[in-house]
Amino acid sequence: MSGSVSPLAPKSFVSMPPLRGVRLATASAGIKYKNRTDVLLMVFDRPATVAGVFTRSKCPSAPVDFCRANLPHGSARAVVVNSGNANAFTGLKGRHATALTAKSAAAAVGCAENEVYLASTGVIGEPLDATKFAGVLDRMQVEATGDFWFEAAKAIMTTDTYPKVSTRSAEIGGVAVTINGIAKGAGMIAPDMATMLSFLVTDADIAPAALQALLSDGVGPTFNSMTVDSDTSTSDTLMLFATGAAAEDGQARIERADDPRLAAFRAALNEVLKDLSLQVVRDGEGATKMLEITVTGAESDAAAKRIALSIANSPLVKTAAAGEDANWGRIVMAVGKSGEMADRDRLAIWFGDIRVAVNGERDPDYSEAAASDVMKAQDIPVKVDIGLGAGTATVWTCDLTKEYVAINGDYRS
Amino acid sequence: MSGSVSPLAPKSFVSMPPLRGVRLATASAGIKYKNRTDVLLMVFDRPATVAGVFTRSKCPSAPVDFCRANLPHGSARAVVVNSGNANAFTGLKGRHATALTAKSAAAAVGCAENEVYLASTGVIGEPLDATKFAGVLDRMQVEATGDFWFEAAKAIMTTDTYPKVSTRSAEIGGVAVTINGIAKGAGMIAPDMATMLSFLVTDADIAPAALQALLSDGVGPTFNSMTVDSDTSTSDTLMLFATGAAAEDGQARIERADDPRLAAFRAALNEVLKDLSLQVVRDGEGATKMLEITVTGAESDAAAKRIALSIANSPLVKTAAAGEDANWGRIVMAVGKSGEMADRDRLAIWFGDIRVAVNGERDPDYSEAAASDVMKAQDIPVKVDIGLGAGTATVWTCDLTKEYVAINGDYRS
Repeated sequence: MSGSVSPLAPKSFVSMPPLRGVRLATASAGIKYKNRTDVLLMVFDRPATVAGVFTRSKCPSAPVDFCRANLPHGSARAVVVNSGNANAFTGLKGRHATALTAKSAAAAVGCAENEVYLASTGVIGEPLDATKFAGVLDRMQVEATGDFWFEAAKAIMTTDTYPKVSTRSAEIGGVAVTINGIAKGAGMIAPDMATMLSFLVTDADIAPAALQALLSDGVGPTFNSMTVDSDTSTSDTLMLFATGAAAEDGQARIERADDPRLAAFRAALNEVLKDLSLQVVRDGEGATKMLEITVTGAESDAAAKRIALSIANSPLVKTAAAGEDANWGRIVMAVGKSGEMADRDRLAIWFGDIRVAVNGERDPDYSEAAASDVMKAQDIPVKVDIGLGAGTATVWTCDLTKEYVAINGDYRS
Repeated sequence: MSGSVSPLAPKSFVSMPPLRGVRLATASAGIKYKNRTDVLLMVFDRPATVAGVFTRSKCPSAPVDFCRANLPHGSARAVVVNSGNANAFTGLKGRHATALTAKSAAAAVGCAENEVYLASTGVIGEPLDATKFAGVLDRMQVEATGDFWFEAAKAIMTTDTYPKVSTRSAEIGGVAVTINGIAKGAGMIAPDMATMLSFLVTDADIAPAALQALLSDGVGPTFNSMTVDSDTSTSDTLMLFATGAAAEDGQARIERADDPRLAAFRAALNEVLKDLSLQVVRDGEGATKMLEITVTGAESDAAAKRIALSIANSPLVKTAAAGEDANWGRIVMAVGKSGEMADRDRLAIWFGDIRVAVNGERDPDYSEAAASDVMKAQDIPVKVDIGLGAGTATVWTCDLTKEYVAINGDYRS
């Protein structure tokens, strides 16, 4: 496995501001890795409201089940995340491990177990020894500090080659609020490692139902519009917490997601979600290119998204990108296999600004040299117009390289 | 691109018998390749009945459109297949090319244009110069001979590393009949090359509707149960012709697919279909392993097949196979993402005879060494029991290797 940082990594990292109402700590519990942190504790000294979106897998991990069960309570005091073991497909032992971890965290923080949220990422099918948390959570609770976001992002990494952080600010009714977020993920499932995990916190004061609506709306064009290898983790978890500390500055609590005072906050939240999700794609295992695939003219937005994902998940499109090959024949193939309505003779395809195909055949004015120049860049925009309706969608993916195969196939050899 | 033969190729090729009522010829028309044949002509001196199954792509090639239009006539006198150019996404020019090819073939053979069938495989989006056929079809018609099946299979290859042939015999009402078949295909779309093509001929006397029913039934557990890279060609074509020559031996024409006299023929046909489809998987681009994935206990056979294909198309399952890694966590992941009903705590998974997981967790008796031995073989059986119902399915795929990426990504570099 390569130890080098993705060529698509950010050139520099943003400075993450402390955020009122949340403290963070990390520790090395020795779950799997040596010489690195593998546990993150987030503490909300006063109850935060909470929203979550989870994997659609029919075989979810034990922590996903645990979070789903707690979510209706709508209140959070602690979050425990570990890397190195996914606690997935671990049967009754997995449920015992989540129960014990929640009990330890509740004791350390002084809250109810249904105010605790859990996430695990790492090996599937290996029992997680939750007694390792019991020894560290008390001390972590004492040490936890507001200025620790970058370290938090590092503790939850598995095959990630860089930590993923993002921050934005906005105003709600004239009061300044902040949104901080961290994420991990490199393949949908890395070598025995599960998962995309992401945790966002804001100091805004927003009721749980409104917070959930904001998150559910925001995830469609961001985290649910990216794909590394089409494989879906058993443990994908995206959570948003609102500490409400901005109430001290006079921010009136927001009860409904359609409250017009949320406009700027919603935009800032969506920017954080997009920033983090693109950072995950750009850390795709073995990636050397990012593809932004925009489909227009489909029968509906949903049809456009299915066509775009069919292109983004095609191994032949992704290997062509790795080879810097402006191979629009494979785009046609992927449109055709999506199952959505398409009229071959109305299709048009662009790489960057270069239209390579139009009206069902090669663009007579197409310059192969110009298209090849587009393919040489790290970021490759692909546009497909279906020519049938008004449906549009944009999705992001990375190329498929020998390094992806090496990361996922060679590690036992 | 590697010039070596797939390690999964047959150790020897069957001897293909001549088949009454069909003659074959090949030629080098210089469509794309040098120093090899690239056109196949099949001639039926008396009209053969015909059945066909085609790509589900919404962007099919011009020859697929042409065949679909002729199929209702139910009668065939000539088949023209070329490699090197798929005549796909070629707009009006593509339709002109099929029309001209059909006209040339009809003139050479002395039949109507709606008795001609066409298939093309190769580059997408490049206009096909059909005038190249006009010069060779007359001579091919004269030279065509019954004992030419192996050469026929070679002429239609693109990135295939070996020709694919199969033959079986059966009796219909006490009269011996034969089924011969050829196929090509290595990726669903190879480097700019489209397609799986397969042509079967029998000397049995079977009416078109019965022939179509036999073929449509046979394709489900064979050609429609294999996947190399999940990508669907614009040009996939599978055709079955019945020359009826066995009528000379007293075989009574079969009008209905449910005629009990067809039992042995149906079994033989399904064997040819399975043999050819497995040969295509075993020539999968870059393949070093074949996986046979059997799902039992699903809610229905259709659900079992969707789960099996979710496993077979998972890049993480396929890279694990390349690395000889008995990674059952990725099987769980692929079951979970299929969208079909599955109860995590009832799942059981086997590699070969080694049960690695049961009741939603690692099998306590599982020997990693024994499972690793299974993974070292060329042919790897994977079995998953969902534990919910009686639905079963088996599909075949190959591993995903760096060589696949090289074949599909490196060829322009």
